[in-house]
Amino acid sequence: MPPAVKSWWMNGADRLCDVLLANDVDVCFANPGTSEMHFVAALDRKPAMRCVLGLFEGVVTGAADGYGRMADRPAATLLHTGPGLANGLANLHNARRARTPVVIVVGDHASYHLAFDAPLTSDIESLARPMSQWVRRVTGPEDVGPAAEAAYLASRAIPGVATLILPADAAWGEVVPATVERAPKPVKPTATIEATRAVAEAIRRAPGRVGLLLAGAALRAGALETAGRIAAACQARLFGGPAVARAERGRGRVSVERIPYPLDAATMALRDVDTLILVGASEPVAFFAYPGKPSRLVRDDCHVVTLATPDCDLERALEALADELGVARSHPNIAPSPAATDAVPQGILTGDAIALILARMLPENAIVCEEALTSARELFELGAHAAPHDYLMNTGGSIGIGIPLAIGAAIACPQRKVVTLQADGSGMYTVQGLWTQAREQLDVLTIILSNRAYAILRMELRNLGVNQVGRNAERMMSLDHPELDWVSLAKGMGVDGARATTCEGFTSLLTSALRRRDPFLIEAMT
Amino acid sequence: MPPAVKSWWMNGADRLCDVLLANDVDVCFANPGTSEMHFVAALDRKPAMRCVLGLFEGVVTGAADGYGRMADRPAATLLHTGPGLANGLANLHNARRARTPVVIVVGDHASYHLAFDAPLTSDIESLARPMSQWVRRVTGPEDVGPAAEAAYLASRAIPGVATLILPADAAWGEVVPATVERAPKPVKPTATIEATRAVAEAIRRAPGRVGLLLAGAALRAGALETAGRIAAACQARLFGGPAVARAERGRGRVSVERIPYPLDAATMALRDVDTLILVGASEPVAFFAYPGKPSRLVRDDCHVVTLATPDCDLERALEALADELGVARSHPNIAPSPAATDAVPQGILTGDAIALILARMLPENAIVCEEALTSARELFELGAHAAPHDYLMNTGGSIGIGIPLAIGAAIACPQRKVVTLQADGSGMYTVQGLWTQAREQLDVLTIILSNRAYAILRMELRNLGVNQVGRNAERMMSLDHPELDWVSLAKGMGVDGARATTCEGFTSLLTSALRRRDPFLIEAMT
Repeated sequence: MPPAVKSWWMNGADRLCDVLLANDVDVCFANPGTSEMHFVAALDRKPAMRCVLGLFEGVVTGAADGYGRMADRPAATLLHTGPGLANGLANLHNARRARTPVVIVVGDHASYHLAFDAPLTSDIESLARPMSQWVRRVTGPEDVGPAAEAAYLASRAIPGVATLILPADAAWGEVVPATVERAPKPVKPTATIEATRAVAEAIRRAPGRVGLLLAGAALRAGALETAGRIAAACQARLFGGPAVARAERGRGRVSVERIPYPLDAATMALRDVDTLILVGASEPVAFFAYPGKPSRLVRDDCHVVTLATPDCDLERALEALADELGVARSHPNIAPSPAATDAVPQGILTGDAIALILARMLPENAIVCEEALTSARELFELGAHAAPHDYLMNTGGSIGIGIPLAIGAAIACPQRKVVTLQADGSGMYTVQGLWTQAREQLDVLTIILSNRAYAILRMELRNLGVNQVGRNAERMMSLDHPELDWVSLAKGMGVDGARATTCEGFTSLLTSALRRRDPFLIEAMT
Repeated sequence: MPPAVKSWWMNGADRLCDVLLANDVDVCFANPGTSEMHFVAALDRKPAMRCVLGLFEGVVTGAADGYGRMADRPAATLLHTGPGLANGLANLHNARRARTPVVIVVGDHASYHLAFDAPLTSDIESLARPMSQWVRRVTGPEDVGPAAEAAYLASRAIPGVATLILPADAAWGEVVPATVERAPKPVKPTATIEATRAVAEAIRRAPGRVGLLLAGAALRAGALETAGRIAAACQARLFGGPAVARAERGRGRVSVERIPYPLDAATMALRDVDTLILVGASEPVAFFAYPGKPSRLVRDDCHVVTLATPDCDLERALEALADELGVARSHPNIAPSPAATDAVPQGILTGDAIALILARMLPENAIVCEEALTSARELFELGAHAAPHDYLMNTGGSIGIGIPLAIGAAIACPQRKVVTLQADGSGMYTVQGLWTQAREQLDVLTIILSNRAYAILRMELRNLGVNQVGRNAERMMSLDHPELDWVSLAKGMGVDGARATTCEGFTSLLTSALRRRDPFLIEAMT
């Protein structure tokens, strides 16, 4: 304990730490600045808090997202004023879309200093609101406790991003010492009886033409089991996606069909669905608009009904629906996924080959963080036949989440192997996260799918009917000249790595990498 | 030209390009996404536009800042929806504080698609406003032309950040073909006669105790010459900073005293100033608040008077003031800066040694982009004795600007050597910029001042009276375990580099690096 601080004295920053720790928020992803030094000093007095440094704020917020998805409770983050928050917003956008519980603490100038418009002054509320479901500015030292508890509860209840703005003078101001009580455990509402009955009725009306779109906790193994019984009994289809925050997948588990990302494929997948039941999901819409094409993915005459909103207890909502439909707990489930084929890809390395090899070799209970975009699109489907695992994706379309997501997942689940499938273009946005993986010696294998291009943009430009690409467009979509060398990038941040150019080479590297318990990177040249 | 586009057909995106090009905005720093594909296709039809790809949006906006500071006209940028803008905001914050003309184009969903809340939907206006002086959403294809011209004019008039939100359907929608006229050249207002007289009167009243605080164009050589005559005639002192967007410095030029960053040193520097004249500057204030210390840097009884606001013609304002004060054009100036001493640092490499060596060896007409923070603080002062050069700094305190700033400066001034002095901690925020330097083969030498720490935070924590640092604080301020290896990072992005550990080694590397005309990186271990 620093000698300057007496034990009977405490400030707002101490109180903040105490409220977080009392509610089991004991990981703080941080990239602090001067206005947060009192918070940093307070953290030094709280060894129970695990502080994890990110060298860029997008790493910090993406890691908090990964942590929240896997731990089912929020981590705290520590960001520095408006620009620090701004750097973290892209991945907060993803966390907000994933409905991950996160408590964002943004330090600001002392309240009286704002009037002077010092260089780092900015409108933090205006920056925070678009990517937060909840925003509050602390009004003074004694408000820190109530505000921090409210932020914690909001992050769990929404669930989502709760942003607390902490002025430096609220952090450094003295508070009356007190013991902090744990907040009452948040209780999730259940789906209403009316909604449950309406959904059951809708399912009965359209036998064989019903889809259940599952999101959030409805994609965990237990809820999937219930959904699978309903699907088997009522001839319904189970969907997830297009983006999935966290799905429990693998052999023996009930699998969902993922709604594809490309618009035409997505509308095709939903073409025969007369009734779509939303279980913690929103109605699926086109990722982007295209001239003359629809924004909605379901048919215009499709009947869309909500069973439960994302804040509800989705597992219980599915159980209540099964009961309402008279589907017994002993009812046979839809067929569990068989094991993958033994096909062993050889020769030239492609995204599809990587997905096949990985699905075969994925260790039991692994966590897959996937931001592969155009590469390895098949891995989600193939995962149904792999060893049981969790599958985490980019939920908001804001790229650069794979590497940070893996940090958070690994810290939440230190006993499990984390495998990141990362496209090269999106990986560069938060490449700094490799350093945190090395610093914390996390059990993360990063597979870079290196196609030296924003391949998704090439596809989109072709969608416009542009088949002949000129210099300006080509230079905005290709990542060669110079080629990125990911093994050197990883080495620069303390992570060992190697390059694979063939299926055999990749398999060999993967075999040895899966035996390690520290960060490693495979640059897969596809 | 893509065959799908007929020559007599054009869309909003074509119009946007035409308006930009008609006004000599012929560089576009870009990181596009799907919603910008029509803009990308249009750029392909405009070979006069130089498109420069950044692998992260902070690189894009920081490069636009560097370009605007050196070219005195805006570059365009191309960003992808709210999260893409968010990633660019930190360096836009710096551009806003620097009052650099920048035209930010942010693509958004087609207007009719917003209601569906697709994954990438966010409140772009709310994100843009804090870091832009001007924001406008294009209402449709025919509004693209007027809106783009208004954005251009706003960026020049403020000068500052003008953000244009371009919905995809405004970009792809057809417009009536027309030739775009150049907008009337913006005319800067002059300082008022009343202000000029009031300032002259204030100077006369407090002989020997007046300071002129110069910013913006008042720090160019010609304006400095005039300010120097006033200073010599009226016994005034000339100040710049604490942060300086662009100062023309070096032997034979009139030099300014830089207001120091640390609060106590800053108040000390201004202690004897009874009257402070603002020439394009705001009143200097403390970067951060500290308990019990003032927010203002001048004494409470200091008389602060504005000669000219940042939008004015500052060179003419100074000339008018000289005339009002009766300072003849032939009046002797304050003594020009002598050449640097011949002291040659040897042995252990330190930030101060690097500043000394660099000041001696800086080539004629170089552009220095400095984000050295705690390292090499002396370089600005020493620069007074160096060969004539431009000195660019971080203006908003949002770190991660050095590497991108150099990109923009090098593209604006291809005949000049750019030397970036970059602290390691802040360099990591936008490390991806090295790739763009390699892609564009820019004449940029990056010197990484590697102290493996957020040293500024250690200093700030000591300012709180915390001298004994525990595990949590130490892990948020040290960048060792693992050490960053900048030579490998640079290699990973196609930039050659080498490490220096002694003054002799650094001098030798610098000598050879200054002979090159392509990007190179020296990792200086201090």
